[in-house]
Amino acid sequence: MPSPLLPPPRLIAFDADDTLWPNQPHFDHVETQLAAILARCGDPARIASHLYAVQRHNMHLFGYGAKSLMLTMIETAVQLTDGAVTGVEIQQLLDLGKRLLDFPIEPLPGVVAVLSALKQRGARLMVLTKGDLFDQESKLARSGLGDFFDHVEIVSEKNEATYRRILARHAVAPADFVMIGNSLKSDILPVLALGAPAIHVPYHTTWIHEEVPAAQLVGLDFHRVESLVEVLAYLE
Amino acid sequence: MPSPLLPPPRLIAFDADDTLWPNQPHFDHVETQLAAILARCGDPARIASHLYAVQRHNMHLFGYGAKSLMLTMIETAVQLTDGAVTGVEIQQLLDLGKRLLDFPIEPLPGVVAVLSALKQRGARLMVLTKGDLFDQESKLARSGLGDFFDHVEIVSEKNEATYRRILARHAVAPADFVMIGNSLKSDILPVLALGAPAIHVPYHTTWIHEEVPAAQLVGLDFHRVESLVEVLAYLE
Repeated sequence: MPSPLLPPPRLIAFDADDTLWPNQPHFDHVETQLAAILARCGDPARIASHLYAVQRHNMHLFGYGAKSLMLTMIETAVQLTDGAVTGVEIQQLLDLGKRLLDFPIEPLPGVVAVLSALKQRGARLMVLTKGDLFDQESKLARSGLGDFFDHVEIVSEKNEATYRRILARHAVAPADFVMIGNSLKSDILPVLALGAPAIHVPYHTTWIHEEVPAAQLVGLDFHRVESLVEVLAYLE
Repeated sequence: MPSPLLPPPRLIAFDADDTLWPNQPHFDHVETQLAAILARCGDPARIASHLYAVQRHNMHLFGYGAKSLMLTMIETAVQLTDGAVTGVEIQQLLDLGKRLLDFPIEPLPGVVAVLSALKQRGARLMVLTKGDLFDQESKLARSGLGDFFDHVEIVSEKNEATYRRILARHAVAPADFVMIGNSLKSDILPVLALGAPAIHVPYHTTWIHEEVPAAQLVGLDFHRVESLVEVLAYLE
C-alpha cells in the first residue's frame, strides 16, 4: 500500500459517469444499435465516424449528453440515407435515446465503500460532472448516492476556468482539493494545471472525444489507481 | 412612484428568459413553422395541442429547453404523419431547432439601465434560470450581460426546494433575497412560499406550461410592475 502523499484534503470531488457508475457502455450500445438501423448505409466504422463528425459539428450548439446524442443520431441518419430515413426508423432512434435517459444507475464496485469510508473520516464530498443538467441530476437521484455528497456541481465543460470557479465558490485552495475521475482530459489535466492534486481511475472504455495523446502526459505528476478503493490510501 | 416597501435586499435574483431578454417569441415562431411543415396533418391548433401532449409526456426525461423541444417536435412529426414524415422534413425541424440555440440575445428595454443602477448601489446580483445548462450559459454569454452578475445559477426546476437550496448555498435569509421574473409559477409562487419577496414583471407571451390559474393568486402579497425599470423603486 503506498504511503499517503497528499495532505488531508478538505474537498474531495468525484466525476460521475464512468467513475461512480457505468455510462459509456450504454452510449456504446446505442451506437451499435444505430449502426444496425443504418446498416444499408455502410459498415459500423463508417457510421461511427460520420456520427462523430456530426457530433463535433454540433458540439458548440448541443453540448454533451444523451439529448445531444439523440439529435446527432437523427441528423446522421438523415444525412447517411440522403433523406430517405423513414419515420419508423426515426422513432426507433428516439426510443433508443430515451433509454439512455432512464437506465438503472448501479454504482461501480467499491463506490459505496469508498464514499462511506471518506464520509466517516469527516471529508467534504462533491460530485463534479459535466453534461446535461436535468439528466445528470436524474442519474444522481437514481444512483441512490445523493446523500453522500455535500455539494453537487454540474457544469457544461470541465476546463481550468471551470475548476477555478468551483474552488473560488467553495473557498478552497488548490492544495485542499482533490479530483478523482476517469477522464484524463476533463478530470486530471485541468486540475493539475491549477496546482491541485488529481487521481486517475481509468475505465475500460472512453469516448473518443475524451482521449488524450500520451505525449501530453509526459512529466505530469498524478496518481493512477486500478480500482476506486485504492484512492483511500492516498486520502488518509 | 410607490414608496420602497422592501428592506434593502442583499441578493437580487433575476430570471433570464423573457425577463432579461425575449425568448418565448422565438419558441412561438418555431411552433408556427412546425405547423406549416405539418399542415397536411391538421390546423395549427391541433398541431400545437399534440406537441404539448408529447412535451408533457417526455418532460420527466427531457426537461426544459430547446433540445427538448427539438426532440419533441420530431416525435410529434412522426406521430402526426403516422410515420410518413420525410427525411427532408426532419432536417427542417433540426435546422429550426438549431436556430433556437444561437439566435442573437438582445436585452429587453430597461435591463441594462436597471442592472447598472443596482450594481452602482452595491447590490449583489444573480441570474437564476431554469433550463438547459449549456444553452442558458450560451445565452448569457451572447447577451453581453454576464459581467453584471456576481452569481449564475442554472437549475432544472424552480420550486420551493430549489429556492431553499440556493438561499442556503449563498447564506442568505429569505428577507434578504428578492426574485424578479415573468413567470408566476416559477419566479413568484415558490419564492413567496419561502417568505421571501418577489416582483412580477409580466411578459406579453407565456408558455402554456407556466400558466397559473388566477384563483391561486388570491391573497398573495407580491408586487407587479409593467416594465422592469419600475423595480428600482421597490429596491431602494
